[in-house]
Amino acid sequence: MRKKFVFIITHGNFGIELLKSVEMIMGEQKDATALGLRLGDSVDNLRSKAEDIITENQMANKDIIILVDILGGSPSNIALYMLKKYININLITGVNMLMLIEIFQSREVKGTDELLEKAIDSSIDGIKRYNLN
Amino acid sequence: MRKKFVFIITHGNFGIELLKSVEMIMGEQKDATALGLRLGDSVDNLRSKAEDIITENQMANKDIIILVDILGGSPSNIALYMLKKYININLITGVNMLMLIEIFQSREVKGTDELLEKAIDSSIDGIKRYNLN
Repeated sequence: MRKKFVFIITHGNFGIELLKSVEMIMGEQKDATALGLRLGDSVDNLRSKAEDIITENQMANKDIIILVDILGGSPSNIALYMLKKYININLITGVNMLMLIEIFQSREVKGTDELLEKAIDSSIDGIKRYNLN
Repeated sequence: MRKKFVFIITHGNFGIELLKSVEMIMGEQKDATALGLRLGDSVDNLRSKAEDIITENQMANKDIIILVDILGGSPSNIALYMLKKYININLITGVNMLMLIEIFQSREVKGTDELLEKAIDSSIDGIKRYNLN
């Protein structure tokens, strides 16, 4: 089973804190990191950091799973650029907590395709409205 | 059109930063706040803070939209408690960026039911896999 490196890229610090919040629930996770684009940050600088992270983990023979906040804006543009340039890159938009939990829970026992399908299904199933009124 | 107060509750700081990230994209938002439960925080204290926020905004005749990270754990338990105790509370689990953007974009022109349906649909539609390999 190939190792999977989870790489979250978002506007602002939300992805960084999402990873920390999930680690608060599940414990510290290896092979995972997050980057955020803050106001005034250089997009080129973020792309360069992202590329360093990707090439380093690809040399270690890991599949890369990039999770971004939304399609549109610099985080997804950087992810799409990496998707075109490198092999074994996977991208999911719309990251939420259950998506990340599902990936961490199953990435050592599922292949990447099956894992991502499950992560998408779980994250979608977890979006529900509750209203007792 | 009743005003809608958006109240995000999550494990850790992820919801607080999600709100900031969306405000980075859309500008500052009124009638919105976020609370996080950090390691070691008192759940009773968080519940009490949440209740203050809810009663204050209900007295101002606003509908309350609570967005939580996942079903399960203290943030959703607190939200479900509020749902049972108060009227005009709505709860969605699985918060992500597009859900929040949709709510902020449409809350002044849509009623709460229609708004939440649209927010759920958008957030689900935005969860997609991209893979060029």
